[in-house]
Amino acid sequence: MKIPKTHPRYKSLLQREKLIEGVENGVTATAGLIAQGRGEAFDYLIGERTTENARKAIRAAVAKLLLAKHPVLSINGNVAMLAPDDYIKLGEVLDAPIEINLFYKTPERVDAIKALLHEHGCKNLLFGDNTRIPTESARGFVDSRGQGIADVVLVPLEDGDRTEALKKAGKFVIAIDLNPLSRTARKADITIVDNIVRALPLMIKYAEGYKSRGVPNIEFNNRENLMGAIALIKERLADETILD
Amino acid sequence: MKIPKTHPRYKSLLQREKLIEGVENGVTATAGLIAQGRGEAFDYLIGERTTENARKAIRAAVAKLLLAKHPVLSINGNVAMLAPDDYIKLGEVLDAPIEINLFYKTPERVDAIKALLHEHGCKNLLFGDNTRIPTESARGFVDSRGQGIADVVLVPLEDGDRTEALKKAGKFVIAIDLNPLSRTARKADITIVDNIVRALPLMIKYAEGYKSRGVPNIEFNNRENLMGAIALIKERLADETILD
Repeated sequence: MKIPKTHPRYKSLLQREKLIEGVENGVTATAGLIAQGRGEAFDYLIGERTTENARKAIRAAVAKLLLAKHPVLSINGNVAMLAPDDYIKLGEVLDAPIEINLFYKTPERVDAIKALLHEHGCKNLLFGDNTRIPTESARGFVDSRGQGIADVVLVPLEDGDRTEALKKAGKFVIAIDLNPLSRTARKADITIVDNIVRALPLMIKYAEGYKSRGVPNIEFNNRENLMGAIALIKERLADETILD
Repeated sequence: MKIPKTHPRYKSLLQREKLIEGVENGVTATAGLIAQGRGEAFDYLIGERTTENARKAIRAAVAKLLLAKHPVLSINGNVAMLAPDDYIKLGEVLDAPIEINLFYKTPERVDAIKALLHEHGCKNLLFGDNTRIPTESARGFVDSRGQGIADVVLVPLEDGDRTEALKKAGKFVIAIDLNPLSRTARKADITIVDNIVRALPLMIKYAEGYKSRGVPNIEFNNRENLMGAIALIKERLADETILD
């Protein structure tokens, strides 16, 4: 289906089509589509734009990743379909490996994501599950060269269980999650409440700037930042013309 | 994957699994999963319960359907997977046919839904596309014995285009939609802002009651009702403990 560029929800529909394609080629789990739908709803509520709150979280996150000893960027099927080039670029700018970590992990899906990322030029990719972080499930296995030794982990579009597990393992967790109420959003140290498609180019831009001009010291309170995101949604819902 | 009944989001996860199964057996379109995700987000925001507002819309909707000359219940893949038995039961109580109407219409999907509904005992099923309601697309074709002559149409989990098309064709449209801001919610004459899984048993109950005791005259203002739903979400977001 060809989406006309003039459609009011063009960008959103394009992301949708990418994920549906991802399901067809084995990169995205069907459950990943449901997660995308939840994200769409919250994106709509924050106005489908990068808010000043999100921008602040992005700056704090990038600074933290640049100062980390072993930063790792976790990737799943949704991220691989929605923004492979920007994610790879961010890894290069931050000098951080990208590690495949899936909720619905099958060798076939890992292979499909590996193939896609290699095709997009990814050179620093990890996908081992030879060490353990403390979780209840098999999902606790991570790469010993990646999340196993990482001090700072970026987990975009991730679920609460993994976020909690990474926290328990002593990692500093940075999440990208459109739902400011999610367990991930609440458990992470820094939550970027933004669409990953909008956040990544900004993260790359800030990382490049900080690398050339120096990394700033940024005070960040995640709870406060999330309350800001929630306040913004409330404000939008208070608009009398919202149903016109 | 077996979901433990003790899981705090058991019902929501169960619906998710049903839809994923629906994709596997061809009943649900992959895009239907994204719609489910959007619904989940709004269901979470209204507190995953039938609000007093929704109950009022349900009563008004049932009264209207009972007083209609040609009521028709539209069904798509998501409804067929989530609540086939209740939907069939509602059709029986209201003496209204169920008509298959799909956004992503393929003969295979229509056949899969037909098979599923027949398996669940549906006796009054329409699926023709031999007449036209005014829309821009091929989706304007409906059954001449169903939505073609209907005066009142129930469209659960439907998109804005079809809702608008039905309105243009002079139909009284009743929607079930968890998103009070959606085009469907705004364009419909009555919008039930509730999870279809919770709404249908109540609709059946009210229909049975009204049939035995008489159909009440119910004043209903859709915009006012939607504003009520939005106010409720705002209220929930104003809870100071929301991030605890």
